[in-house]
Amino acid sequence: MDPLTVTPIGSVHGGRREPIDDDWADVECQIRLDDTRFGPAALGGLDGFSHVDVIFVFHRVDEDDVHLGARRPRDNRDWPQVGIFAQRAKARPNRIGVTTCELVAVDGLGVTVRGLDAIEGSPVLDLKPHMTEFGPRTPVRQPAWSNALMHGYW
Amino acid sequence: MDPLTVTPIGSVHGGRREPIDDDWADVECQIRLDDTRFGPAALGGLDGFSHVDVIFVFHRVDEDDVHLGARRPRDNRDWPQVGIFAQRAKARPNRIGVTTCELVAVDGLGVTVRGLDAIEGSPVLDLKPHMTEFGPRTPVRQPAWSNALMHGYW
Repeated sequence: MDPLTVTPIGSVHGGRREPIDDDWADVECQIRLDDTRFGPAALGGLDGFSHVDVIFVFHRVDEDDVHLGARRPRDNRDWPQVGIFAQRAKARPNRIGVTTCELVAVDGLGVTVRGLDAIEGSPVLDLKPHMTEFGPRTPVRQPAWSNALMHGYW
Repeated sequence: MDPLTVTPIGSVHGGRREPIDDDWADVECQIRLDDTRFGPAALGGLDGFSHVDVIFVFHRVDEDDVHLGARRPRDNRDWPQVGIFAQRAKARPNRIGVTTCELVAVDGLGVTVRGLDAIEGSPVLDLKPHMTEFGPRTPVRQPAWSNALMHGYW
């Protein structure tokens, strides 16, 4: 399929400098919009929402390390081998992360968030206000390994 | 900021052929992975999850129509003017949509989903298993206009 070009709308400032697996809940950072393309109007009204969905790039993952098939999450032998699209590992095609985080403050072109699992310098492709209606509309079922993996994540 | 290249992992087959605002809940379609890059192993174990988060491109939006500032959602005068990052309108920078949908079936390189608000032919950039732990970890607050807009969406 034909490649597409995307242009980051901004990037992550502050927060962690290295990707660490767990304990992201209290990490705060600021997403700063590209001031050559955006003004504060682009964020107008965002502070009416408590949460924001952040679409970002795991930019430190080398494209050669991206998995296309199956692997054990975190190479943990207690967990089953599952396809790259059955896990949220960062070494994935297109290296895109999507995370719902708490909105702390909007100030000019900066959006301070809490609980974003992206490191400093990560390109941000989009910000969306979190609406409960975009969550699952039917009961959620997920395998036990995924609950175990997520146990210490936040 | 420097542009990035992304390569669709597959595309949407079936479902709606035209973007219609509302009533997406019962629309079924199939996401088919690019068979030149992926095998069924990439989807192994996905059927252990009830829901999948789909990252796709609103490819029919002309780049010249993308909003960078503020507008009224759906141009509805009952709703306030808000920034493009305070709404989920499709005419947005990078034209990326993220939607949680029900997983109906996984078959070879095909993933049948229900409630994906993407039309036939939409490029898909990523599929992630939906984990409850990735939902909001604190109570959600959102403005009344967003509830009104979402009223007939599903």
